[in-house]
Amino acid sequence: MQHAATSSSAAQHSSSAPFPAPLTGVVPPLCTPLTADGEVDAAGLRALAGRVTDAGASGLFVLGSSGEAAFLDDARRATVLRAAVEAADGRVPVLAGVIDMTPARVIAHAERAAEAGASALVATAPFYTRTHPVEIAEHFRRIRAAVPLPLFAYDIPVAVHTKLPASVVLELAEDGTLAGLKDSSGDDGALRRLLVALRGRGLLERFAVLTGSELAVDGALLAGVHGVVPGLGNVDPEGYVRLYALAREGRWTEAAAEQDRLAALFALTDVGPEALMGRNSSAIGAFKAALHLLGVIGCAATAPPQVPLDSEAVKAVRHLLEEAGLL
Amino acid sequence: MQHAATSSSAAQHSSSAPFPAPLTGVVPPLCTPLTADGEVDAAGLRALAGRVTDAGASGLFVLGSSGEAAFLDDARRATVLRAAVEAADGRVPVLAGVIDMTPARVIAHAERAAEAGASALVATAPFYTRTHPVEIAEHFRRIRAAVPLPLFAYDIPVAVHTKLPASVVLELAEDGTLAGLKDSSGDDGALRRLLVALRGRGLLERFAVLTGSELAVDGALLAGVHGVVPGLGNVDPEGYVRLYALAREGRWTEAAAEQDRLAALFALTDVGPEALMGRNSSAIGAFKAALHLLGVIGCAATAPPQVPLDSEAVKAVRHLLEEAGLL
Amino acid sequence: MQHAATSSSAAQHSSSAPFPAPLTGVVPPLCTPLTADGEVDAAGLRALAGRVTDAGASGLFVLGSSGEAAFLDDARRATVLRAAVEAADGRVPVLAGVIDMTPARVIAHAERAAEAGASALVATAPFYTRTHPVEIAEHFRRIRAAVPLPLFAYDIPVAVHTKLPASVVLELAEDGTLAGLKDSSGDDGALRRLLVALRGRGLLERFAVLTGSELAVDGALLAGVHGVVPGLGNVDPEGYVRLYALAREGRWTEAAAEQDRLAALFALTDVGPEALMGRNSSAIGAFKAALHLLGVIGCAATAPPQVPLDSEAVKAVRHLLEEAGLL
Amino acid sequence: MQHAATSSSAAQHSSSAPFPAPLTGVVPPLCTPLTADGEVDAAGLRALAGRVTDAGASGLFVLGSSGEAAFLDDARRATVLRAAVEAADGRVPVLAGVIDMTPARVIAHAERAAEAGASALVATAPFYTRTHPVEIAEHFRRIRAAVPLPLFAYDIPVAVHTKLPASVVLELAEDGTLAGLKDSSGDDGALRRLLVALRGRGLLERFAVLTGSELAVDGALLAGVHGVVPGLGNVDPEGYVRLYALAREGRWTEAAAEQDRLAALFALTDVGPEALMGRNSSAIGAFKAALHLLGVIGCAATAPPQVPLDSEAVKAVRHLLEEAGLL
Repeated sequence: MQHAATSSSAAQHSSSAPFPAPLTGVVPPLCTPLTADGEVDAAGLRALAGRVTDAGASGLFVLGSSGEAAFLDDARRATVLRAAVEAADGRVPVLAGVIDMTPARVIAHAERAAEAGASALVATAPFYTRTHPVEIAEHFRRIRAAVPLPLFAYDIPVAVHTKLPASVVLELAEDGTLAGLKDSSGDDGALRRLLVALRGRGLLERFAVLTGSELAVDGALLAGVHGVVPGLGNVDPEGYVRLYALAREGRWTEAAAEQDRLAALFALTDVGPEALMGRNSSAIGAFKAALHLLGVIGCAATAPPQVPLDSEAVKAVRHLLEEAGLL
Repeated sequence: MQHAATSSSAAQHSSSAPFPAPLTGVVPPLCTPLTADGEVDAAGLRALAGRVTDAGASGLFVLGSSGEAAFLDDARRATVLRAAVEAADGRVPVLAGVIDMTPARVIAHAERAAEAGASALVATAPFYTRTHPVEIAEHFRRIRAAVPLPLFAYDIPVAVHTKLPASVVLELAEDGTLAGLKDSSGDDGALRRLLVALRGRGLLERFAVLTGSELAVDGALLAGVHGVVPGLGNVDPEGYVRLYALAREGRWTEAAAEQDRLAALFALTDVGPEALMGRNSSAIGAFKAALHLLGVIGCAATAPPQVPLDSEAVKAVRHLLEEAGLL
Repeated sequence: MQHAATSSSAAQHSSSAPFPAPLTGVVPPLCTPLTADGEVDAAGLRALAGRVTDAGASGLFVLGSSGEAAFLDDARRATVLRAAVEAADGRVPVLAGVIDMTPARVIAHAERAAEAGASALVATAPFYTRTHPVEIAEHFRRIRAAVPLPLFAYDIPVAVHTKLPASVVLELAEDGTLAGLKDSSGDDGALRRLLVALRGRGLLERFAVLTGSELAVDGALLAGVHGVVPGLGNVDPEGYVRLYALAREGRWTEAAAEQDRLAALFALTDVGPEALMGRNSSAIGAFKAALHLLGVIGCAATAPPQVPLDSEAVKAVRHLLEEAGLL
Repeated sequence: MQHAATSSSAAQHSSSAPFPAPLTGVVPPLCTPLTADGEVDAAGLRALAGRVTDAGASGLFVLGSSGEAAFLDDARRATVLRAAVEAADGRVPVLAGVIDMTPARVIAHAERAAEAGASALVATAPFYTRTHPVEIAEHFRRIRAAVPLPLFAYDIPVAVHTKLPASVVLELAEDGTLAGLKDSSGDDGALRRLLVALRGRGLLERFAVLTGSELAVDGALLAGVHGVVPGLGNVDPEGYVRLYALAREGRWTEAAAEQDRLAALFALTDVGPEALMGRNSSAIGAFKAALHLLGVIGCAATAPPQVPLDSEAVKAVRHLLEEAGLL
C-alpha cells in the first residue's frame, strides 16, 4: 500500500518518542517562508524551525493561521510539512494544521499530514457553513476516527466565526477525542472557566490547554494553561521561552515584565496601514519582514492576494526590533 | 499536455456554443445527492439535473452552498462535475462552484472544473482569513488570469463573513474580470444601487446579475436582475421558471402571486428544530427530503457532520409539498 | 397640573379622526432641524412637515433614526413632538418614535408623546441589554398596556443588534398588541415570508407593514407592504409619493424607473468620507445639507458628537440634487 | 428650588476627600434591589452597599449593567443614586453610571448624578447610532466639559457593539478628559497593550484601569490594572477583596486559587436556561437570587421585561452558594 510506504519513509523523521500528554511549553506557529514567486522556501522554513527549536520551543506548529495555511494549496502544504518534519528531526513534535471546512476535507489533509510524519493534528470547527454544537462535536470525532494522531481543537472565532462551546470541549476531552485545545479566542474569561471545569474533572493531567494569545500569556499560565502558541514567537522565541520559564518558577513579576516587553513588540502587527491592507496581511507581513531583517529567511513575501508591506512599514518593523533589542 | 487532453475529452460534454453574456433565467444551484454511506450519487444528480433542465432552467450551478460544496472532498467534487456536465450534455451551461479560502486553492478547483468541462466558474471572496477590498479584487483577478472561463463572483456573507463591496464588483465588471454576480447577500438595497450603477456604466448588457434569493425574486427582476439561482428551485423548478416568465412578460401581479406560493413552500427550511441542528442541515436536509419524497433521488442523506432530519421533520416536508401541490 | 394643560392644548392639534388601520402610503421619518447651537429649530421642522404633507405624505414619523432621536434629550424630543403635531394640524397622523432601552424608559417617552398629541407610537426591541424573544414580546405588551395609542414595532437591527423574530411579530399582530411594523431590517426575504404569514392569518387587513427601505420600495409594494417610511423622503417626498401611486395603479415598470432615480439620489448618504465620520453622520448630514440647499431649513447642523460634512461633501450633495432635478 | 436642597443634602453624604487618582481596589457594580412591583428597594440597596463596603470595597459603582441601569427610568435611577450616596456616607466614593445613547442624554443623567452627590461618572461610548472614533472622543469630551466630576469610560462591546479604540482611550487619558477606564470588553490582549502604552506615557499614575471581568482578575492585576469591578462581587465581595490583597502582596498562586474558586461560583450566571431567557436575565437574576438567599435583600425580582428564574434555577443558585461556602 502506498500510504504505508510513504508513511514509513516519513517515519525516519518523526519522533519515535510518544507524544507528550499533556503537551506543554512554547509551540510557535511557524510562518511559511515564501519565495518571491510564491513557492514555499523549504530552506527558510528549516532555518526558522531550527531557530525556534534552538531557542527552546517544545514543539512546532505548522500550517496554522500564522503559517498562512489558508493561502497554500495542497502541494505547498505538503512541502511545508516535509520541511518541518525534517527540521524537527525527532527533537520536538510537529503539530500540523489541517485547516479546511468540514470533516471530509479535513481528513484528506490529515491523511497527508500523517504520511508526512506529523506528530499531531490541529483542526478548527467547521467553517463557511453554519453548524450546531452537536455537529461540531461530530466533526472532531470523525477526524479522530479517521486518522490515529493526537488531535487538537483550534478555537479561532476570528477565522471560523463560531466560538467552540465549552460543553463540546469538555465532552471531547473526557471521551479522548481531543488531546488538547489551542485557544485563540481571546476570551480569557471563558478560558478560565474551562480550566476550572477540566481541573474539576481531573482532565488537566492529560488534556493540554494552550493559549494562542501573544499578549496575556503570563495570566494564562497563572490560570493554569500548559503552554503557549504565540505567532510573535516566530520573531522572538527566546522571549516566550523565558516568559514560560519564569512563570514555571513562580517568578510572576518578572514573567509579567517579559510579557510587557513582548506586548510592546507586538506593535509589529500594526505597521501596515489599515486603510490599505487587511489585518492578516499586516501581521503576517510584519512577522516575515522581521524574520527577513533578522536574517532568518531570504524573502519577506506573503502569499497572494495579500498586500505587501511598503518600505515605510518595513522601517517601522526595523525600529521595533531595535527597541526590543533584537536587532 | 495533459490538461489539453483531459479538456478535449471533457469537451465532448461541454457546450460548443458560447457562454451567454449576460446569463439570464433560472439557474438552480443543484443539491448533491448522496448515498447512505456518503458517496456522491451520480445517477441521482443526473436525474435532478435532467428534471430542472426539462422544467426550463437556463443553466445548472453545481458545487454551491445548496450543493454542499463545503462538505465534499476533491474527489467527490470531481464526481459531481462530471455527472453534471454529462447530464447537461451541452443543452445548458454548467456553472461550477470553486469554493475555497484563497486564490491558490480556488485555482486548483478551477483547473479541475475546466478539465471536467464546466462552462463557467463561481467563486466567493476569500474566507477564513481577513481581507481588504483591494485583496478581494486581486483574488478574483488571479482566478480569472489562471483559468480562462467566465467567472462569477458569489456574494454570500453568511458563509464568508464579508459583503462584496459594490466598488469591487463595479471595478471587476468594468475590466472584464467578472462575467457576473450571484448575490446571496439578501441585501436588496445594496443590490438595487449596484444595478443602477451598472446600468449607468452600460454594463448590464454583458455583466449578469443573478439573485440567490428564493423569496424576493419578483422584486429583484423588477429591479433589473438577469436571473435567479434559487436553492428552492431544486424542489420546484417549474415554479421559478413560471415566475421568471411572468416577470419577463410584465405580468407582475401574477409573478408576485407565484413568488408568494414559493415563499410559503420555503417553510421547508424550518422543519428541522433549531435546538437540534444547524440552519444548513435543516435547509439542505429539507430540500433533499423533498426530492426523495418526489422520487427524484434515492436517498435524502446530507453530508457529515450534518444532523439528519427526524421523521417528524420529514412529515412536515411532505405536508408542505402537498400544500404546494407538488405531491 | 401643567401636563394636563399641555395635553389639552395638544389635543387641539391631534386628529380627532381614528387612526387608519392599516396605515398606508408614504410616511417620511422627519429629520430634526437644529440650530447652530444644537437647539431644535421648530420653525424648520414645521416647514419640513408642511413640505412633505403637501407632497402627499399620509403621515409623519418623528423621532426616528432619521430624526436623530438618539441624540436628543427629553426636552428636545418634546419640542419636536409639539412642532410636528402643530404642523400636522390633524391633516395627517403623527407617529412618535419612543426610542429607549427597555419598557420602563420607553413608557416614559410614550406618556409624553401621548400628552403632546401623537397619533401612534413607534418602539424598537430592547437594546443595550441582551434579550430573549419572550422578553421582546413582553416589552411591547407592557408599552401597549401603559399607553393607549396604536403601537408600531420598529425592526432596526443596525441599531438594536437583534432582528425582530417573525414569530414575535405574528403573535403581537394577532393579539392586537401591535398596529404595525416598520421594517428597517433590509431583509426582504424575511419580510416576504412575514407578509405571506400575515396574509394567511387574515391580518394584513388591519396590521400595517411599512418598509423602512429607501431602495427596494417597488419590490416591497409588489410583495404587499402597505407603505414606506423612507429617510430619503425628507429630500424628495414627491418622488416617493409618485412611486407609491404608480405601484398602486399597477404601473410597475414606471414605479421601478422612479425607484431607480431615487436609488441614484441615495448616493447622498455616501458623500461623507468613511475615514472621517460615521455612516450616521454622513447620511443624516447629507439629508440636512440637501434640505438646506433646497431652502427648506435654515441650518444643516447635525447633533453632537456627529462630525459635520465638509464643503467638498456639501458640493457633492448639491451635484446630486441637480442630477435628480431637484435643484 | 428643590434640586438645590437635595443637592446640598446629598453633599452631606458625599466625600469631602478628593477622589483617589488613580482609583484602586474592588469596586462592585451594585445590583439594584427591586420590590415585587418593580420599585427600587432603597433599604435593600443600602444593605447591599453596606455589606460590600464592610467587606473592604474601595468604591461603589451604581447604575451599571449589573445595576440594571438600562431597565430603570430616570426617577428610579435617582432613587438608586440617593440611596447609594447615603449608604456610602463619605466612607467610599460612589461612581454613577450615566448610561445613555449620546452626549446630550448622558449629560442629563450626569447632572442629576452630580446633584445627588456622586463622586464620579461612568459613561459608555454612544450606542444605538453608528459612530466614528472621532465622534466617540468628542462624546466623552462633551460629557466631561458639562459636568465637573471625574469621568470613567466604560468599554462594554456586548452592550454598545463597538470596542473603544485604544487610540481614543490614550488620547483622552493624556488630555485629562478621562480619569479611568472600566474594561468589560473581555479582550485581555488589547487591555495588555493599552496598559503598556499608558505606562510608557507615564499615565498609569493618575489614570485608573479597572477590569470588569470576574474571571481573570489575577491575570489582569499581574498585568497592571488598578482594580476590579466584578458583578459577582455583589455575591462574594470578600472573595474579591481577598484576591486583590493577595495580588498586591505578590502571592500570585494563592490569588489564582481564589480566582479559581470565584470562577467556579460564576456558574451562577448559567442557571437560567438559555432556551427560556436572555443571558442578562439569567446572570442578574442569579446574583439577586443569591443575595436573597444570603438574606441581604428582601426580594429577588429583576426588572421587566426580564424573565424571572424558576424554582429549579434558584435551587441551583443555592447549591452553588453552598459549594462556595457562602451558605
